[in-house]
Amino acid sequence: MGTTNKDQIEQIRQLLGNDGVLTGNDCLTYESGARFDVGKAAFVLRPATVSELSAAVSFCVRNSIPIIPQSANTGVVAGSTPDPSGTQAVISLERLRNRLEIDAENRSVHLDAGYRLSELNARSEQHGLFFPIDLGADPLVGGMIATNTGGARFIRYGDVRRNTLGLTVVFADEKGSVVKLGSSLRKSNVGVDWKQLFIGTCGVFGIVAECVLNLEPVPQQVATALLVPKSLDAVLPLLDLVERRAGPSLSAFEGMSGNAIAAALAHVPRLKNPFPQREYPEYAILVEISRSWEAQQSEILIDEQLQTMLSEIWDGNDELLEDVLVGPSDELWALRHAISEGVKAAGKLVALDIAFKRGDVMRFLKRMRTDLPAAFPEVRICEFGHIGDGGVHFNLVVDRDSANAAGPDYEGRIRSLVYNIVVNEYGGSFSAEHNIGRKNQAYYDRFTDENLKRLSAALKNSTSPSPLGVPVLW
Amino acid sequence: MGTTNKDQIEQIRQLLGNDGVLTGNDCLTYESGARFDVGKAAFVLRPATVSELSAAVSFCVRNSIPIIPQSANTGVVAGSTPDPSGTQAVISLERLRNRLEIDAENRSVHLDAGYRLSELNARSEQHGLFFPIDLGADPLVGGMIATNTGGARFIRYGDVRRNTLGLTVVFADEKGSVVKLGSSLRKSNVGVDWKQLFIGTCGVFGIVAECVLNLEPVPQQVATALLVPKSLDAVLPLLDLVERRAGPSLSAFEGMSGNAIAAALAHVPRLKNPFPQREYPEYAILVEISRSWEAQQSEILIDEQLQTMLSEIWDGNDELLEDVLVGPSDELWALRHAISEGVKAAGKLVALDIAFKRGDVMRFLKRMRTDLPAAFPEVRICEFGHIGDGGVHFNLVVDRDSANAAGPDYEGRIRSLVYNIVVNEYGGSFSAEHNIGRKNQAYYDRFTDENLKRLSAALKNSTSPSPLGVPVLW
Repeated sequence: MGTTNKDQIEQIRQLLGNDGVLTGNDCLTYESGARFDVGKAAFVLRPATVSELSAAVSFCVRNSIPIIPQSANTGVVAGSTPDPSGTQAVISLERLRNRLEIDAENRSVHLDAGYRLSELNARSEQHGLFFPIDLGADPLVGGMIATNTGGARFIRYGDVRRNTLGLTVVFADEKGSVVKLGSSLRKSNVGVDWKQLFIGTCGVFGIVAECVLNLEPVPQQVATALLVPKSLDAVLPLLDLVERRAGPSLSAFEGMSGNAIAAALAHVPRLKNPFPQREYPEYAILVEISRSWEAQQSEILIDEQLQTMLSEIWDGNDELLEDVLVGPSDELWALRHAISEGVKAAGKLVALDIAFKRGDVMRFLKRMRTDLPAAFPEVRICEFGHIGDGGVHFNLVVDRDSANAAGPDYEGRIRSLVYNIVVNEYGGSFSAEHNIGRKNQAYYDRFTDENLKRLSAALKNSTSPSPLGVPVLW
Repeated sequence: MGTTNKDQIEQIRQLLGNDGVLTGNDCLTYESGARFDVGKAAFVLRPATVSELSAAVSFCVRNSIPIIPQSANTGVVAGSTPDPSGTQAVISLERLRNRLEIDAENRSVHLDAGYRLSELNARSEQHGLFFPIDLGADPLVGGMIATNTGGARFIRYGDVRRNTLGLTVVFADEKGSVVKLGSSLRKSNVGVDWKQLFIGTCGVFGIVAECVLNLEPVPQQVATALLVPKSLDAVLPLLDLVERRAGPSLSAFEGMSGNAIAAALAHVPRLKNPFPQREYPEYAILVEISRSWEAQQSEILIDEQLQTMLSEIWDGNDELLEDVLVGPSDELWALRHAISEGVKAAGKLVALDIAFKRGDVMRFLKRMRTDLPAAFPEVRICEFGHIGDGGVHFNLVVDRDSANAAGPDYEGRIRSLVYNIVVNEYGGSFSAEHNIGRKNQAYYDRFTDENLKRLSAALKNSTSPSPLGVPVLW
């Protein structure tokens, strides 16, 4: 690993221009992440074109400077900030924004990695289209691909992987090789589908510079309701009933614990409480159905469709449903999306992001309601989850005054207890959509088959042999 | 490469039992493929368990016998038959059928590679579920994964890749290593999604032994119609109109040339002609919408929904639609699925399977109607295609009496002409879903980036270093 000197800074400035290189205090905002991870960069490079990105990578490789690619830095597992050594170069994708071309016929968009999700959607909406990954944050598309974001409409539209048609990546080799993987085609079987290796692997095999993404028609009619199940055991049968009746109109089936709802309402004053004159229920489910066309005279309104569907379900299944609250979509979604902010404000947050076979989600949650307080009595479980696809944001809010929580490696002990149960007893995943970063590195090391680490090492060696990105997957 | 002797046969018989090893004339059915490719096997191995598969692979590797994995052998690019040398071992997956477990809660199935698609669906239907890949043939699931089958409902359900949750593969190394890739989870981001490398790569990196697949609720209500566009230019605008109105109910948008329809009707007498007292149109589109729930009193019937939708489209777009024929789903699909059989009987068949950006499909087809007869006047274009996802089965029926067609490498000259235009001028794919096999090897070699061949070589070396499968991807 080399040390950076003034000559090197001067050289790279000549390649990228003054706006392309930041040093000293100008690096500060690139050195701290969304969840309190802070490091120190040698410098920050901000290439504005794919060839500048290639030149920047090549420069770092030739000078033995490890690279940390960074998008909007909204991730929560410390995957895009430099370590404290001051020897790593952050390469930010934020200025890679020359091309955003929508092909409405193909329902696809070809764009550089530096556009925000909100910008992509604003432009796509001019064609009645959108990129169907829904989440609270507003990341850059490069980072969305590197983490394989899922989000709240996964049950209908899938994850970033399903919606990625093609990628252009830059390898961390001497040349900063630019390699095109896939294209605008929806169907092509001509050997390995290489782009898959760069989706969800945090940039360690190559930096995403450009991509072609699938777009979907914007929903024109949306109806939502909150279901209050009679018990946790009722949630899965309700999913089955709703899914079978709504079919592909079902665009969300999001579970929220009463604690998560309480945290959101307590800390986000603009929210409207959908449970008037009531205690919060133990659990509630946000159900959304949607149609991508304007309402037609001949057809039943979508609100009516949802109400009819839910009444029919309720009629036949008294033992499952306690209550149904119909509310405006924007209010219910505001509540759902405010949970992350709410739990962050409620105490010290340990945010786990785990996944199960759908049938195991509620079994696990029921078990944790007894097992976790036994080991960590100072913890309040404020989980919510994408029940329709088995994902759970298992948020644990820790009492800040607890002496227990001040002990060494407290977060690590919680992660170990939970992940061991998730992986070893349920065959679940310790990272549903947040990915590895530094926070999950130890568990990747623990839970990954040695055969697959060996394959990762070979892949690393044949793509980006130089140090690139945060997690070590080999 | 070793030569097989009686000792070797005896050894492998002890591992797999008498039913597990075929020699001599018993190998005949495993030596010829669906499209007239014929070879000669050293022997055929038929392991009945994953450990027998591992033992069979290990035996071949240790004895330097190249392996050809074979599923139902329904492929059309000569990808699962041995070459004529008599030195290759066919390993058939047909007896790998111990496990077929449906998890209705998770909407998934865990099964061995040797089950037929029809068997999988018969079992899944007991739970109201099905594996949503629709095609005319009845392959084994192992082969479907190795080729990444698409089919006629791709626009709604995607390909095999999208519907594969996990795989168990056997590497062609000394140990016949058994490696588990993914599981029953819908969401998991814990490093490289390795299963992707074994989907659509014809088994050359490892043999699929088991898989976990996504299942979907069986459609309960289906409505179909044939649209006759005013011209080829009208097809794409019709796709857009239908897609925006039907949304995710749209489960097929299949284009059929008049020649393809004529070939099917001429050669499959059981079919009903949907065009009474008429010449066949130049082009027709099979549109299907479907719902996965039983019809409810409150809701408009699906046939009525389709008719209303099509009337509204017709009213506003006189210039696009010539005619709409509503017919029973099973009759229209019987016609559509009979095209493959029809064109095969109509003359010498050169079957190309290509893909485009959706906007380019009709542009290409229009162009071919003039360019192809100029170079090959003896050829009749009988194409049909999955227009909704840009795929075209570009079937060329050659007059058997043509002197031109008797020339050397006739099929190769046609493939070259068409593929060069597809790939170089449209950025399309020379293999949409049929894959590489022997028939497309030369074009893989021609059109594939050297960087990617180098990556394939590294992957081959770190998974299955011994000779396995047909195409050479490195």
